[in-house]
Amino acid sequence: MMDKVELKGRVARLQDKMQESECQAFIIIQNVDLYYFSGTMQNAQLYIPAAGEPVLFCRKSYQRALEECPWPIIQVGSFKTMPRHLGDLGLEAPSRLALEYDVLPVANFLGVKKIFPHAKTMDGSPWIKSVRALKSPYEIALLKNAGQKMAEVFSRVASIIRTGKSEIACAAELEVEARKTLHEGIIRLRGYNQSLFFGHFLSGASGALPSFNDGATGGAGLGAFFPQGCSEKTLAPGEPIALDYVGIYNGYQVDQTRTFVIGSLPEALYKAYQVTLEIQDAVIKQVKPGIAPSQLWDTAVSIAAQNELLDHLQGYGSDQAKFVGHGIGLEVDEPPVLARGFDAPLLENMVFALEPKFVFPGLGMVGIENTWLVTADSAEKITVFPDELIQIPE
Amino acid sequence: MMDKVELKGRVARLQDKMQESECQAFIIIQNVDLYYFSGTMQNAQLYIPAAGEPVLFCRKSYQRALEECPWPIIQVGSFKTMPRHLGDLGLEAPSRLALEYDVLPVANFLGVKKIFPHAKTMDGSPWIKSVRALKSPYEIALLKNAGQKMAEVFSRVASIIRTGKSEIACAAELEVEARKTLHEGIIRLRGYNQSLFFGHFLSGASGALPSFNDGATGGAGLGAFFPQGCSEKTLAPGEPIALDYVGIYNGYQVDQTRTFVIGSLPEALYKAYQVTLEIQDAVIKQVKPGIAPSQLWDTAVSIAAQNELLDHLQGYGSDQAKFVGHGIGLEVDEPPVLARGFDAPLLENMVFALEPKFVFPGLGMVGIENTWLVTADSAEKITVFPDELIQIPE
Repeated sequence: MMDKVELKGRVARLQDKMQESECQAFIIIQNVDLYYFSGTMQNAQLYIPAAGEPVLFCRKSYQRALEECPWPIIQVGSFKTMPRHLGDLGLEAPSRLALEYDVLPVANFLGVKKIFPHAKTMDGSPWIKSVRALKSPYEIALLKNAGQKMAEVFSRVASIIRTGKSEIACAAELEVEARKTLHEGIIRLRGYNQSLFFGHFLSGASGALPSFNDGATGGAGLGAFFPQGCSEKTLAPGEPIALDYVGIYNGYQVDQTRTFVIGSLPEALYKAYQVTLEIQDAVIKQVKPGIAPSQLWDTAVSIAAQNELLDHLQGYGSDQAKFVGHGIGLEVDEPPVLARGFDAPLLENMVFALEPKFVFPGLGMVGIENTWLVTADSAEKITVFPDELIQIPE
Repeated sequence: MMDKVELKGRVARLQDKMQESECQAFIIIQNVDLYYFSGTMQNAQLYIPAAGEPVLFCRKSYQRALEECPWPIIQVGSFKTMPRHLGDLGLEAPSRLALEYDVLPVANFLGVKKIFPHAKTMDGSPWIKSVRALKSPYEIALLKNAGQKMAEVFSRVASIIRTGKSEIACAAELEVEARKTLHEGIIRLRGYNQSLFFGHFLSGASGALPSFNDGATGGAGLGAFFPQGCSEKTLAPGEPIALDYVGIYNGYQVDQTRTFVIGSLPEALYKAYQVTLEIQDAVIKQVKPGIAPSQLWDTAVSIAAQNELLDHLQGYGSDQAKFVGHGIGLEVDEPPVLARGFDAPLLENMVFALEPKFVFPGLGMVGIENTWLVTADSAEKITVFPDELIQIPE
């Protein structure tokens, strides 16, 4: 069972924000948020009053929720009975009720409105994102564990990559290595319609293809029905092989990209890869509490421009992504976003992935990505696998 | 690119339903629905008027959408410009506009309402489910291909299972076999907060644990942060090892469960497994266009009761699932549902999974699941791997 003191701290920070907005209750429904605030991911909803202890309403499995969640738990057949149970607990029906507008489907939203017909609903998702952006020591330890595991997994890559083998055959072998380290398999993203399967195994021209995701990389994928990531393309010497993978362990995710090549890279791509390392160094040197994420984006843009690589930064043409990093934790797409317009300063204990990448249509993608913790005065690397270009003998 | 005639048929069937409800336009946003009606899954929205050709508005990647979707495509930086483009095309702003209430997040919904401030919005998701429930010959061929692939994958199971090996180690090896047959990895479910990673590898007591999913099975999983499917538990002789797996190929999914044992099953579990086969036979004998799904549920309940197994059917205690089958296709949880109250008759070309299972707390789960096509006068099996209990020598 998750430590109650840990959960209390999380709930208290949310309640501060609720009180600032005169919100009387928050019903947490999305599974990742539910886990964060209750310790369980069962079929349940967490009722958080503006002050005092939350109450978990659980449909299935009640028994597992009892073992996982330290909050009081009420077993229900339907969430429609929530108001009656709240009344029994001496809690009055909220007149201002927060919900997760960014992820909650309309049908569920209308369902809650029917159950609480007198409540004015409001969007509480910005508060959740802001609370979750600051990681506790408990969470940081789990993130570091995920970083270690992914270093272990990536240490197998060089023995998997081979000329003539398909991207998907290589990816499959890497996935099984990840699973054997207890990688959970399902990557969690918050953005609507966004998805990843482990990450992207990208080689040569196929790896330069953009995707629907709000990211720098895509990949050919298996077809229009799965248009991202590894494809049936076979690996060849001299092309960049970029692996952008998410590790998820104990619910916590790290994001890391490494670039490999069988033989050696063409000079221009090799140089571009060195520029991604230069961007990483320059950005990380600036990281400390107080700096604006937008400044870090500017740094990346400026170095790319100096090297005449701006047209290739984070994609190509109309598919260029306009950010060079993103927060990460229980979900891959958390704040802070390292992009123009994101001026709210970094804070100690934020965790983000920094991913400078250059995409060359017809040739491929090169880049580096690491996950970093903002410390009291700088940044600490969580994804500890070496950064260098990895050359595999032909 | 997907055949335009195939897509036209799908859109026409949706437009019939739109016209019946005096709906003037449907904006399709969810990625699976988008793929079904447009052939692409890029970052795009499909505007379907009540009559005439749809228009795809695409943010990213426009180039890939052009290669995948035969409808007219307009590249946009933001979907906010949709009304202006519609005006240019001579289409007037809709006064009654359908959206996918069951899956669309509130924030996206409010975004559309802002873009079309004079439109009355309505829930079009029931129409989509009803259109998608009838599979075309093209879709049936893909479903049969998925069934063949999963038979190939399951033919490897007996060589993977071994006393002392962990569920997750076995599951990982099975996953890599699936991936090498081009299994896409991401299982698609429509229900909110529902998820699966390939499916469930369940052994003994751990396999009898319920999950948050609306299904008969759960499994211990890796922890509260991933509370379903395979765990670190090791396999032992004499316990049921039930594999409930979804195959997804070319976007189309089949669902199949088989029961294995190292050595032999205790008599009571062996008998229970035979009863699941008996239920399957009895239900399938009844299947033809015109029969109500609720009748099929009644058949399953009645055979379970005759064998004094009703308390174990589809779970145990308050976690029993109240259905014995479900439609399947691009998503795992499609209509028809084989449960009480579902009286709308089966139609030719519906595809469903039938999954009678018995759960014994502390002992495990036994069951069978196959995916079936409703033909003109009966049912055809799509998941062709043999049904028998598979005994692996100790």
